[in-house]
Amino acid sequence: MSLNAEELFSERALASRPSEIRELLKLVDSPEIISLAGGMPDDRFFPIDRVVEASTYALREYGTKALQYGSTEGIKKLRVLLGSRMESEGVRGVDLDNVIISTASQQGLSLVSQIFVNPGDTVIVEEPSYLGAIQACASMQAKFCTVPLDQDGMKMDVLEEKLRELQKANIRPKFVYTCPTFHNPAGVTMTAERRRQLIDLADKYNLLIVEDDPYGEIRFEGTSVPSLLALGGKERVVALRTFSKISFPGLRLGWIVAREDIMKRIVTAKQAADLCSPALTQYIAYEFISRGWMDEYLEVVRQEYPKKKNAMIAALEKYFPSGCTWTNPEGGLFVWVKTPDNVDTAAIFSEAIAAKVAYVVGVAFYPNRDDNSHMRLNFSAVDPEHITEGVHRLGDLLKTKI
Amino acid sequence: MSLNAEELFSERALASRPSEIRELLKLVDSPEIISLAGGMPDDRFFPIDRVVEASTYALREYGTKALQYGSTEGIKKLRVLLGSRMESEGVRGVDLDNVIISTASQQGLSLVSQIFVNPGDTVIVEEPSYLGAIQACASMQAKFCTVPLDQDGMKMDVLEEKLRELQKANIRPKFVYTCPTFHNPAGVTMTAERRRQLIDLADKYNLLIVEDDPYGEIRFEGTSVPSLLALGGKERVVALRTFSKISFPGLRLGWIVAREDIMKRIVTAKQAADLCSPALTQYIAYEFISRGWMDEYLEVVRQEYPKKKNAMIAALEKYFPSGCTWTNPEGGLFVWVKTPDNVDTAAIFSEAIAAKVAYVVGVAFYPNRDDNSHMRLNFSAVDPEHITEGVHRLGDLLKTKI
Repeated sequence: MSLNAEELFSERALASRPSEIRELLKLVDSPEIISLAGGMPDDRFFPIDRVVEASTYALREYGTKALQYGSTEGIKKLRVLLGSRMESEGVRGVDLDNVIISTASQQGLSLVSQIFVNPGDTVIVEEPSYLGAIQACASMQAKFCTVPLDQDGMKMDVLEEKLRELQKANIRPKFVYTCPTFHNPAGVTMTAERRRQLIDLADKYNLLIVEDDPYGEIRFEGTSVPSLLALGGKERVVALRTFSKISFPGLRLGWIVAREDIMKRIVTAKQAADLCSPALTQYIAYEFISRGWMDEYLEVVRQEYPKKKNAMIAALEKYFPSGCTWTNPEGGLFVWVKTPDNVDTAAIFSEAIAAKVAYVVGVAFYPNRDDNSHMRLNFSAVDPEHITEGVHRLGDLLKTKI
Repeated sequence: MSLNAEELFSERALASRPSEIRELLKLVDSPEIISLAGGMPDDRFFPIDRVVEASTYALREYGTKALQYGSTEGIKKLRVLLGSRMESEGVRGVDLDNVIISTASQQGLSLVSQIFVNPGDTVIVEEPSYLGAIQACASMQAKFCTVPLDQDGMKMDVLEEKLRELQKANIRPKFVYTCPTFHNPAGVTMTAERRRQLIDLADKYNLLIVEDDPYGEIRFEGTSVPSLLALGGKERVVALRTFSKISFPGLRLGWIVAREDIMKRIVTAKQAADLCSPALTQYIAYEFISRGWMDEYLEVVRQEYPKKKNAMIAALEKYFPSGCTWTNPEGGLFVWVKTPDNVDTAAIFSEAIAAKVAYVVGVAFYPNRDDNSHMRLNFSAVDPEHITEGVHRLGDLLKTKI
């Protein structure tokens, strides 16, 4: 008898969908195609020499510890360093026991979903929302209650309306997930006023907030806004951070800040997930940060990324047909384009590939409905000339559709 | 209103238990205590110079790719290399699409549990069984059907009996999990005959087998037995392998071999779990293996570990009271001791710590019942003199209890 694996898969597995971005990106693996579809930092700015020095030092100085099993919580000196960096951002009351190193923030999303979401439980997310968060929650069979965004971030009037509806229906959402700063995919930042409203609503409705903040340190314009963790404190906010944008995705490191009772559950879930994150990469990250090299690298990023973003905005203005609008972010990696409703960005994707340009179809970021009139454009990974040329190609295609 | 997180945790989180080993090991973090409680390789044999060379080369040669996002499946050249290594072990029909790099084998266990186990589903495991596997399955709310072991591994007559019972009750087990070679904690190896019986039973009852094989390459006595993957093929067997014992746990790398329909689900689950494993550590592993340094390291291990095991067996014979029995493994890391039934190894653990010696209480490896007459002793991480002294201390304690 041959084995039919379909009969054995869990409901969880059957409910999970592969990342549309990753599936699409497989098509894009050609040097002729200008890809505005990524979410990667520009690796031409990676200071390889510094990393060689950090890794050699880490292996020599920490020796066998760097290659041995570590604690599930992570290397202590790295956690202390991260805690003190966050303190300088205005976060109070974060002790060593509130910080755990994760295998980048995707693992943060996965662990948080695991410890809170029963099949059918409701989580509140922005619409649009980060695909990786949708995936992590969907893999635990969450239901999504969506709240739209505008230029100022998640709309608090709609959130309160939805909270009232949920309350009436006796549904307690497990958490509100938000990416408030340089939102992925929308590029917008939640204003300080809306952040305070969100904390007030969390107090009023007794909610937990999950703040995903991968891009906060990639601000190159405007003035910074306090994080939800700084405003609401760890009592209300679980914060997910990552090294992927402030240093190197290839380290696969991030950290989670949570109150102790939640942290205890996260630690147990991480033990079952992967025991601990690599000690070697943690020591490399420690050396890279403590020597001031991350701040040095961030200065380069903050100087170079706006050139890219400005090139993108200028090209959008020049080449995109009227009827298209877009966000103009003060940091982060993404511009979010709205096309006229009669243009289906999913339907024309293969034509864009034929025209040698790629983007991410907007629908990937909508858990509950098919919105086909958006596209996410990335400016971080491409140089200004190619951004201009890529947007030009895309504009030409769009003009044939309107 | 303050937030009561207990009201929000998932059933999954509430059902998960922290690793007793890890909790106990926190007590053991004193240099005076001889710890026979670990499961770590002896890091005194780690060739740090080699790793420095491999990491420097990896960063210089693969450059920014080593620090950038990689594919969920892992670095292609590493997967090819692992595939050809397995081929030389007698595994047939494993293509690139059947191999994925995982964040060590704990993630393999976690992903396999996630894609197969619905709450309440049955998995068949050995009794005793590896704690990390129990944790991974328990975190998905599995029920355990246990099959005892003897010197020759899982008892096939009992397995068939249990399979018949399950069939009568209309319960289809999701998989049979086994650690057939140098079992953790029991140290025993499933004979070739039993392996063939297991494959036959899997054919007869249409079962999937999950083969966890972290120690197969740490054989220092006897003759090797073909893996279940080699005997049963990927149609019936999902194989979990890890670098943690054959090189360095601090890399947190392993690999999973599975047929394509299962692999597709594993890839989607890994996307949600952590997107991809670190490219940097994968390139380091590639360089370390392809230069022959892993084989060199394994030769040292196979030369040194038997000295440790022999010291442990000699000390057990000399210092342990009559009525105690133990396994005598041909490889791996562990000896499994049975004490007389009136000795409760969990109850006397704190006395052992007071006597400055640590072990792992046997009950940690029993998912369904309290067996308190076993202890797991590790010989890999300790030098022969300390093994002798540790076993001496433990023997003296046991003599006071009989």
